[in-house]
Amino acid sequence: VSVDLGSRSYRVAIGRGSLAAAGAAIAQAAKPTRALIVSVPGVDRRYGAALMRSLKQAGIPTSRVCVPDRDRSKSVSRLAELWQACVRAGLDRRSVIVALGGGMVGDLAGFAAATFLRGISFVQVPTTLLAMVDASVGGKVAINLPEGKNLVGSFYQPRLVWIDTDTLRSLPRRERAAGMAEIVKAGAIWDAQLFAHLEEKIEAALDLEPEALLPAIEAAIRMKAEVVSLDERETGLRMLLNFGHTLAHAVEALAGFRGILHGEAVAMGMVYAARRSEQLGCAPAGSATRIEQLLARAGLPTELPPHPRRAYLEALSVDKKRMASVVQFIVLEAIGRASVRALPIGEVFPAPRKTRHVEVVG
Amino acid sequence: VSVDLGSRSYRVAIGRGSLAAAGAAIAQAAKPTRALIVSVPGVDRRYGAALMRSLKQAGIPTSRVCVPDRDRSKSVSRLAELWQACVRAGLDRRSVIVALGGGMVGDLAGFAAATFLRGISFVQVPTTLLAMVDASVGGKVAINLPEGKNLVGSFYQPRLVWIDTDTLRSLPRRERAAGMAEIVKAGAIWDAQLFAHLEEKIEAALDLEPEALLPAIEAAIRMKAEVVSLDERETGLRMLLNFGHTLAHAVEALAGFRGILHGEAVAMGMVYAARRSEQLGCAPAGSATRIEQLLARAGLPTELPPHPRRAYLEALSVDKKRMASVVQFIVLEAIGRASVRALPIGEVFPAPRKTRHVEVVG
Repeated sequence: VSVDLGSRSYRVAIGRGSLAAAGAAIAQAAKPTRALIVSVPGVDRRYGAALMRSLKQAGIPTSRVCVPDRDRSKSVSRLAELWQACVRAGLDRRSVIVALGGGMVGDLAGFAAATFLRGISFVQVPTTLLAMVDASVGGKVAINLPEGKNLVGSFYQPRLVWIDTDTLRSLPRRERAAGMAEIVKAGAIWDAQLFAHLEEKIEAALDLEPEALLPAIEAAIRMKAEVVSLDERETGLRMLLNFGHTLAHAVEALAGFRGILHGEAVAMGMVYAARRSEQLGCAPAGSATRIEQLLARAGLPTELPPHPRRAYLEALSVDKKRMASVVQFIVLEAIGRASVRALPIGEVFPAPRKTRHVEVVG
Repeated sequence: VSVDLGSRSYRVAIGRGSLAAAGAAIAQAAKPTRALIVSVPGVDRRYGAALMRSLKQAGIPTSRVCVPDRDRSKSVSRLAELWQACVRAGLDRRSVIVALGGGMVGDLAGFAAATFLRGISFVQVPTTLLAMVDASVGGKVAINLPEGKNLVGSFYQPRLVWIDTDTLRSLPRRERAAGMAEIVKAGAIWDAQLFAHLEEKIEAALDLEPEALLPAIEAAIRMKAEVVSLDERETGLRMLLNFGHTLAHAVEALAGFRGILHGEAVAMGMVYAARRSEQLGCAPAGSATRIEQLLARAGLPTELPPHPRRAYLEALSVDKKRMASVVQFIVLEAIGRASVRALPIGEVFPAPRKTRHVEVVG
């Protein structure tokens, strides 16, 4: 899949068992003087040596560095350590940082690449399903502050995204499902054919059967690449990608960002948003149920946790993407189509209706 | 002066006593929801309240924050504090950070603006001569690491640069002279007319006489704006701006970045580079002496400190802009014209010549 952004266009290459070929592809895409692989211990142990060998065989002097495998690693202090690791590794303006791992690694390493020496080359080798279909396309890199997630970052495009689906074998089932939620989203908002493909083969895809999984990954990436190409800096169309995310952010915040995976929160949020779309008269009846059933087959949760309405309203009102007390809510129009609708927070999460006695006169 | 960078074009407005009008101009240029003024205590005490009043009168809720007035403030820890101050000030994606001060404040606040919420609006109100003519145009923002200066940063353009030359009244004479070195540079590499203007009126300009100073500032900014417009990301033409800087960086490094102002190091470096240009047969004889005399009239040093040649060679070889052991040395071709020349470090700083006995045969 190619992501078309003028002079910053790049390629997302999807393959099986392709890790050993990464070095040659990186050499071609970035022509780097040196490389620094950034990873987490578990992933580095499995794939770090192979990737490093591949880079060295392509003639690129390479070193490796690990950060602890938790979202808290997206911190100012880990970032500062990573910048210093860049100096120690001897990176210059023509060097490349290679992120080997999931979304956290991509975000942290990508932001380091965006800012070290005012920006050096960046390559992603995602090893989680979520990172493959979501974090690897879009150019959003960031770290967290104590005050909130992703508060500091850049829009920064990689030179190449190199996906080897064999790296998913070591990914726990629960994380595969969480990644699948974003693929379901791609189908729901953009690609009815992808949605139908999943309705047929979602179990096989979760079992990593290539003929079920690869087309799904490719279609999800193609969707995001199209949307991002049309709207790089998230001013319009790209907001559609937030389908399910308004409530997902609230769910994550109310859980204290613990015990729930992002994809799981998105699954709950999508079912909620689809139901709300039906209630608002945007989506045909039954759409929400189709989404719900598909997500349930993947083992994903589909009901919002039972926090009080007030808690949801408060969580929504501190949403980073808010403008005043109106949120840009993504409504489903049909399976495969969505749009943005400005909704007061109270309308996103309306009070339970009282029975109304209406008399029609005339 | 307008800096022409397509959709990121902006205006540099130069005036006298114009600080009170800054708020309205910022409101027009950035249409911000809120503003955060970043400054240092000395500058904030003099001009902070007036700028804040001006912003509030323009309807922009504004807060202020100070960092200590030293180059060490361009650190990761000050940056982290500034990011947190952005959160506390309630900045959102449509807010603006206003840098009120010299180059350090502009670099730190600019990098915070480039990265907070993946980039918010940025306005510069420079209060040193150096920041007015140099840091305010070019879009380079950065912080230091323990391992070196400006190792982390971005290319990020302000929405507006608002210059009130009255703020220079409180600037010590020595710092005025250091800023003047960059104006002399602008004349030397790009604008023979500016150079002639300075030869006529440099003392009056240093005394802040408007008819001497304002045209000089404007011409220096226009030079940099032209060069940056033609080469935003420092790949070619923009290297000319490094005239005098190869040696200046070495001088600063050898002084441990203490006791010498950047403009003073640049003054020494320019005289050296001009002499070397004459020796290399690039510049007509006498060019270096014109530069030297002009800088001396400003009270600037013109001779390199007497470190051993080996020390200079070592300092040059760790120059951040090096590629291998060849540096891109800026040679003068005439007053008002310069070019880039790849020179081995040994040729930048050649060994003292032995007397050569050459016999021409033929």
